[in-house]
Amino acid sequence: MPRDTASIAPRRQSRAAASPESRPPALTSTPAWPPERRLLAWLHRMAGAPAIRLQLWDGSVTGPDQAPYTVTIADRGALYQLLRSPNIAFGDLYASGRITVSGALDAFLIQLYPALAKGAASRPGWLARLWRDPDRQGASEQDARLNIHHHYDLGNDFYRLWLDSAAMQYTCAYYEETDYSLEQAQLSKLEHVCRKLCLKPGQTVIEAGCGWGGLARYMARHYGVRVKAFNISPEQIRWARERAQEEGLADRVEYIEDDYRNIGRNIGHSTSMSTRAMTRCDAFVSVGMLEHVGPANYASLGQAINRVLKPEGIGLIHTIGRNRAAPVNGWIEKRIFPGCHVPGPVELMQLFEESDLSVLDMENLRLHYARTLRHWRERFLSHRQQVSAEYDETFVRAWDLYLAGSVAGFTTGTMQLFQVVFAPAASNRIPQNRRHMYRHSALASGANAVEAKP
Amino acid sequence: MPRDTASIAPRRQSRAAASPESRPPALTSTPAWPPERRLLAWLHRMAGAPAIRLQLWDGSVTGPDQAPYTVTIADRGALYQLLRSPNIAFGDLYASGRITVSGALDAFLIQLYPALAKGAASRPGWLARLWRDPDRQGASEQDARLNIHHHYDLGNDFYRLWLDSAAMQYTCAYYEETDYSLEQAQLSKLEHVCRKLCLKPGQTVIEAGCGWGGLARYMARHYGVRVKAFNISPEQIRWARERAQEEGLADRVEYIEDDYRNIGRNIGHSTSMSTRAMTRCDAFVSVGMLEHVGPANYASLGQAINRVLKPEGIGLIHTIGRNRAAPVNGWIEKRIFPGCHVPGPVELMQLFEESDLSVLDMENLRLHYARTLRHWRERFLSHRQQVSAEYDETFVRAWDLYLAGSVAGFTTGTMQLFQVVFAPAASNRIPQNRRHMYRHSALASGANAVEAKP
Repeated sequence: MPRDTASIAPRRQSRAAASPESRPPALTSTPAWPPERRLLAWLHRMAGAPAIRLQLWDGSVTGPDQAPYTVTIADRGALYQLLRSPNIAFGDLYASGRITVSGALDAFLIQLYPALAKGAASRPGWLARLWRDPDRQGASEQDARLNIHHHYDLGNDFYRLWLDSAAMQYTCAYYEETDYSLEQAQLSKLEHVCRKLCLKPGQTVIEAGCGWGGLARYMARHYGVRVKAFNISPEQIRWARERAQEEGLADRVEYIEDDYRNIGRNIGHSTSMSTRAMTRCDAFVSVGMLEHVGPANYASLGQAINRVLKPEGIGLIHTIGRNRAAPVNGWIEKRIFPGCHVPGPVELMQLFEESDLSVLDMENLRLHYARTLRHWRERFLSHRQQVSAEYDETFVRAWDLYLAGSVAGFTTGTMQLFQVVFAPAASNRIPQNRRHMYRHSALASGANAVEAKP
Repeated sequence: MPRDTASIAPRRQSRAAASPESRPPALTSTPAWPPERRLLAWLHRMAGAPAIRLQLWDGSVTGPDQAPYTVTIADRGALYQLLRSPNIAFGDLYASGRITVSGALDAFLIQLYPALAKGAASRPGWLARLWRDPDRQGASEQDARLNIHHHYDLGNDFYRLWLDSAAMQYTCAYYEETDYSLEQAQLSKLEHVCRKLCLKPGQTVIEAGCGWGGLARYMARHYGVRVKAFNISPEQIRWARERAQEEGLADRVEYIEDDYRNIGRNIGHSTSMSTRAMTRCDAFVSVGMLEHVGPANYASLGQAINRVLKPEGIGLIHTIGRNRAAPVNGWIEKRIFPGCHVPGPVELMQLFEESDLSVLDMENLRLHYARTLRHWRERFLSHRQQVSAEYDETFVRAWDLYLAGSVAGFTTGTMQLFQVVFAPAASNRIPQNRRHMYRHSALASGANAVEAKP
């Protein structure tokens, strides 16, 4: 799958917008010509006529006078980039400061998104094709490593600035109570997932895409299970192993730097210690990895699950989703999560249906993710200067746009968050009902258990 | 859609097998010829070689000696019918007594079904085509009336013999505790559905496919809502109205004899009292109707929902499903539920995805339906003589096969039961989590509330 490989080069500076658009604003544009003002008005209409003002470098304006937000386009080149490829250009231009937005960025995007959806539905065909975001159906093993490296190896110190200190979770938290802190909500999420998996002491769990390993350690510590956790991010794996060592869990949690496609591949005849020791597991869990898998690889993931999950085992997949299948925003896919694909419910069910897995339970936690993202963004912005010094201002603006855009996506329903519990089709060892998930507060069990080590 | 219209004629006698196969067994068949014995062995292999013996009219046998069940084929004609169209022939021949099964029918079918699935996967293509069940994608409004009439208008007295006396529910119950009676479990189901809908006093509910109206009355009585409940079975509507009158609920529950496709069609300009008074509803619910809708009509159902559900409303669809899309067993579709289609999860999600509804929650209650069906079958068999006198023995055997087959289907995972909660895509008035469904026993609220009037 062709990608802008420049954007994933492991440089610490300007990675989020390492493109020509990151040049400083051209302040020398001559006043807008009348056709450019008309193009601006047309752009506003094609964007679904949001209650937002668009302003050009010379002060020309389109959009309602009373609009609470004004988007300023700093130069002529920026306008033409926006016209050609609005999603990618908006992100790059915002990151480089050639587009600015008056007012709160997340509130602005919450205003914008429903209009964009309306606009997209009524655009002429040629324009829909021109502005279409690329649809990534799944990366090869090699590309997957580059994709994951691009985002997750930005530096553990960076993520520690704004993720929760309790379990370093970079996925949707579970706000069982709306006043939970990020730490409380992330522990509740871990507990909620464990309850859905009906874990029992002595069981074995395989986790695909384990991030910094917080769920694996939580399961081992609180549920007495043994975990093999897979991930292809070297930075995350390194950190996860150190933490397991420090917490005395290294004998129960093994972090394996390998692709989900290789899970269970070598049962019985491998020379690698990790895979040789692999037996079938009681539970299979994957939290926040499916977005990087892509529908073209769902069958491979299903095969991995069927290779390792016991006939009476249980599994859970937690993933960002959508109400209707559509490609991810082009800028997000290009700059933030290369290769990423967010499934609609039909695509998601194809994973289970084609792998002969029975769907037992599906929960949509969309508004929990909106809240999680607001928490992350608050913390991120509170460390703005530090991040800017370490990376640069373009990086900060790009990440702020990504976080604010995600707040808006989950708030307006552009994005969903699905947790799906499943079992092999022939299993009757399935939970009788879901009461066990709610018998006690999900926090009570875990609140003081995982030590906060920021 | 062409159907055997003879089988849906509203005659009280022999409706389940009004076909040539219902002739008495031909006791005059000459001994089986060697090629017929080989065909029998081949049939056993093509059925996935189950641990079941097949025996011909002259005592010839195939299958393992120690098999716990023996299927006896009473005459030559029966063997050839089985070879030509095993699903339909097995049902018809069992109903007419030309096939008999030693041992418990449900246990026999539980043994048989996994083998059949294995056999189907390895059959040669020509045979798979020959034996394929017809795939019903959805009936017209007119056919739907005939289909529904065929099954649900068999007579209210008949269903009262074996459905629960508390709410006359002909859908999967909810056994919050495994020792619940059928009555307790059906009330728990009604309560579980109401909780999922987050009903509040004064709200309005539209129900599509209301059966004998038990859910509508439960909602009105226990949640103080007003309900408009649609159904195209005249027998069920008549009974539902009488009960609402008797229970003093007629001012809050209106039963409307109309197709789901017409729900909300005439808002504002109808001359019918029912539809003129229709305003948008807070909740839309449909329990056990989708099986009769068919994927070709899911868009129509989605349109009906979008016409009537408030932008901040909530909905629930409860339906039989499967893990993988496939046609319904040909005999069930021909004799028991004409026109019926049971969706896989992908088909089911298409309903929501294509109607821009957001899936909030999905629960699989498969084993609850297996238990419900065991309860129904026990009661049915305890009234065997009465049913035989009213209808005939062929009818009794056909219904016993249908009920036992359903027990087996839900026990072995051939069939699933999905409850899906959904909301319009833009709504943020969605439940924060699912704890409200589990705060108290679902029975506590309803147990003594709906009077038992058998």
